[in-house]
Amino acid sequence: MSADVVARLVAELGDRVDTSPDALHAARADKSGHAAEGLPLAVVHAGSVSDVQAVMRIASETATPVVPRGAGTGLAGGANTGAGEIALSLRGMDRILEVRRDDLLAVVEPGIINADLNAVLAEQGLWWAPDPASRDISTVGGNIATGAGGLLCAKYGVVRDAVLGVDLVLADGRLLRLGHRSVKGVTGLDLTSLVIGSEGVLGVVVAATLKLRRLIPGEVRTLSATFPDVRTAAVASAAVTASGVQPAIMELMDATSLARTHAYLGLPAPAPGAAQLLVQTDGPAATAEADAIAATLVASGGAVVLAADEAQAAHLLSIRRSMHPAWETAGTTLIEDVSVPRSALPAMFEVIADLERRYGVAIPTVAHAGDGNLHPNFVVPGPEVPEEIWQAAGELFQAALALGGTLTGEHGVGVLKRRWLADELGEDQWEMQRQIARVFDPAGILNPGKVFTP
Amino acid sequence: MSADVVARLVAELGDRVDTSPDALHAARADKSGHAAEGLPLAVVHAGSVSDVQAVMRIASETATPVVPRGAGTGLAGGANTGAGEIALSLRGMDRILEVRRDDLLAVVEPGIINADLNAVLAEQGLWWAPDPASRDISTVGGNIATGAGGLLCAKYGVVRDAVLGVDLVLADGRLLRLGHRSVKGVTGLDLTSLVIGSEGVLGVVVAATLKLRRLIPGEVRTLSATFPDVRTAAVASAAVTASGVQPAIMELMDATSLARTHAYLGLPAPAPGAAQLLVQTDGPAATAEADAIAATLVASGGAVVLAADEAQAAHLLSIRRSMHPAWETAGTTLIEDVSVPRSALPAMFEVIADLERRYGVAIPTVAHAGDGNLHPNFVVPGPEVPEEIWQAAGELFQAALALGGTLTGEHGVGVLKRRWLADELGEDQWEMQRQIARVFDPAGILNPGKVFTP
Ligand SMILES: Cc1cc2nc3c(=O)[nH]c(=O)nc-3n(C[C@H](O)[C@H](O)[C@H](O)COP(=O)(O)OP(=O)(O)OC[C@H]3O[C@@H](n4cnc5c(N)ncnc54)[C@H](O)[C@@H]3O)c2cc1C
Ligand SMILES: Cc1cc2nc3c(=O)[nH]c(=O)nc-3n(C[C@H](O)[C@H](O)[C@H](O)COP(=O)(O)OP(=O)(O)OC[C@H]3O[C@@H](n4cnc5c(N)ncnc54)[C@H](O)[C@@H]3O)c2cc1C
Repeated sequence: MSADVVARLVAELGDRVDTSPDALHAARADKSGHAAEGLPLAVVHAGSVSDVQAVMRIASETATPVVPRGAGTGLAGGANTGAGEIALSLRGMDRILEVRRDDLLAVVEPGIINADLNAVLAEQGLWWAPDPASRDISTVGGNIATGAGGLLCAKYGVVRDAVLGVDLVLADGRLLRLGHRSVKGVTGLDLTSLVIGSEGVLGVVVAATLKLRRLIPGEVRTLSATFPDVRTAAVASAAVTASGVQPAIMELMDATSLARTHAYLGLPAPAPGAAQLLVQTDGPAATAEADAIAATLVASGGAVVLAADEAQAAHLLSIRRSMHPAWETAGTTLIEDVSVPRSALPAMFEVIADLERRYGVAIPTVAHAGDGNLHPNFVVPGPEVPEEIWQAAGELFQAALALGGTLTGEHGVGVLKRRWLADELGEDQWEMQRQIARVFDPAGILNPGKVFTP
Repeated sequence: MSADVVARLVAELGDRVDTSPDALHAARADKSGHAAEGLPLAVVHAGSVSDVQAVMRIASETATPVVPRGAGTGLAGGANTGAGEIALSLRGMDRILEVRRDDLLAVVEPGIINADLNAVLAEQGLWWAPDPASRDISTVGGNIATGAGGLLCAKYGVVRDAVLGVDLVLADGRLLRLGHRSVKGVTGLDLTSLVIGSEGVLGVVVAATLKLRRLIPGEVRTLSATFPDVRTAAVASAAVTASGVQPAIMELMDATSLARTHAYLGLPAPAPGAAQLLVQTDGPAATAEADAIAATLVASGGAVVLAADEAQAAHLLSIRRSMHPAWETAGTTLIEDVSVPRSALPAMFEVIADLERRYGVAIPTVAHAGDGNLHPNFVVPGPEVPEEIWQAAGELFQAALALGGTLTGEHGVGVLKRRWLADELGEDQWEMQRQIARVFDPAGILNPGKVFTP
């Protein structure tokens, strides 16, 4: 049967079908530190919409599960492909089909890397605002499928705010065009929004019409503020939000994160317990805003360094940007992703401190403090996350929900959080979401076992 | 049977059930100029979530259609309630449940009038950005259910950008809580977005968590620019968009609209054929931006008046704001609502001119030029829109679609556009949307015949 599926794929798609051991192994995992059981049937490197349609038709007719895949940088296991499944890679569909400066839109294929697109747009004075820290390595299609956020999103929005339409191939191979090219439109139900963040369970995104911005004129100002402890830093970030001055970036690093990154970069160790805020302002009022924020942070007990030039700014920023590589040297990292109302950041840090005490583990945490999105990280020595750590993570999720937040601010549910999904949605909504997915994919062959528990 | 339904409503809801002839007549119509056939069974003035649940349970058990209703200012016939149906008014549920200045959010009941909410928010230096021209008379729940736009939306977004979550009562009376209070969140499918613009066919919005903004500091600058003809004005507005300076408001009035409004206000008649742009800038750079836009408009052939003071600004704005009352004196107005990419505005005005010639009718048109949303108006003498006018409207929709736009930018489909819905969506997507609606409302008792043709 599975040999049959592969034979049909090869007959129709030729050397776009890859069954080399390397390819099959690579498709088992994303960057979550988790991998699917067993080896996929094949990896198909789609080159066109009709390739995608052909795969879905064969999969439908043979009831074979298909896992859409961008660059595989996801942190929830959403693209992981296992035994009996086809990995459908969109990475090769990476053309920019159209850029309209006058209408501030671009039409692109899903496989283009976010930073590659932005490099081309910058030549025309444009950008697509979503800027996940993974923008150099993740695809626009993956960004859409996960509803990605980024450092700039408190000021410039997330993916949901930056997509006008998507072309979607359904489980049975039909092509739907959702959305429109106009800024406004309320015709029927907003299926474009429904696809954003749907993690490959509704259909395969084969093209997207993106809402662009003009590059922000003026300089960027960068400052860091160091606090004696993380709670003071969190309270200070809330004070910035409350002051009404909107930073472009406001990132918080707790003591463990800061110390580890300093060590990784070979910098002198920070004071024990010290936490840091990294802030950028941009636009015509960047300097005035940086000064105002600096004043707020000093008043909140911070020691502020305002970068005097670009080199110093780059240095300050590199500390935040080196977080992921610094952790990778420490073992398997389970990167969590809860999001709470901004005022609840200090409370969330207290929850984390309490978990650290009770479970006897360090939970180094960074936060997009400007929007209340925290990444508490569980670093474990071996390749497997022990059940006790999952228990601590479960407590973390419950605390975020109790504060009016969510168990995933930007990374998605994938396989890693599906067992908590009903806690957030409630049984009724969970069941309804599942039924909606079934409208798109009645046989359940698209990314089965992701988002929803099987 | 219907007597039975009313009896059950009265038994459970007492004097919240209104069967007075005045109330029943009023519930037949919104502001579209159209009314449903026959008289509704009753109008229920819900005072609480449990009232809404009670109505829906009785309606479910008796298979009675329910039409949710805000203030009835809709322009698509969506709230019109006819024979055999219950009008469920949310207007009385108008409390503000919570305002969080630190988290920039408010939780409100659906019946509060947009302007009333904003008056309270303004005391705290806050606002909810969606500003339909009907903000003094329409409800927040209605704004959400229609996905309303407004004059400021090119700069500050539409309803879709300003809602974090909604509480929804389903057809069977169950209550779902969709969304969250955090800025970010990608847990499962984005049902909050799906409810926005769903025109009462998915459920009854009984509360909403709104994303607020801080009031924009600084002054507002207002200017008008008069052009020899509408095409020149449209090209000029595209030039402003292309210049990269973002106006807060940019409204276009064609010759017929301008002339009629001048007559209505008792102002001297404009030059024959003259069209006008009304522009406002705001924020710290308002004056510099107004100057830059004025220069662009002069270079595009406009005669520019920059308001010297608030009185003059109010006068300029009053011309645009008097459009609706001016038309109302002229007969039944069918207010159309197509939206196209901004660069296609001039092309759209050519289509309208062509339709005027071929059908021998005047189609006075205003446009939210900043976002490409046009309101071409068919003014007919009698109370009924003749079939020929519908044919012209149909051609208008096709032209908007051909330009990459949509047949409704902000007013919704309701009953007036349902026969064109499949033209825009395609049969496959139309069918899929209908199936999704059935997941929420399997028996189809919520606003039947709206959005989708029966
Ligand atoms: C160092 C690092 C930093 C990161 N920083 C951020 C961050 O700041 N913000 C953030 O949001 N994320 C971040 N991520 C997570 C990840 O980069 C994002 O989730 C990204 O959007 C995934 O894109 P991808 O192309 O790698 O998708 P993949 O990992 O290949 O897939 C992700 C999910 O989307 C689905 N999918 C992919 N493409 C399609 C398609 N065309 N059609 C349908 N479904 C599809 C997959 O099935 C899977 O469920 C980071 C990851 C790393 C490793
Ligand atoms: C003078 C004038 C100017 C206007 N200007 C604009 C404009 O600039 N932009 C714009 O977008 N619109 C405009 N409109 C149209 C109208 O005001 C909007 O559509 C508004 O959002 C409708 O709100 P409402 O409370 O009157 O809703 P209603 O007319 O009562 O209902 C509209 C639709 O929403 C549904 N609905 C209402 N409340 C709920 C609820 N709580 N739960 C579920 N469904 C519900 C109804 O079933 C119906 O389908 C204008 C109308 C007028 C008369």
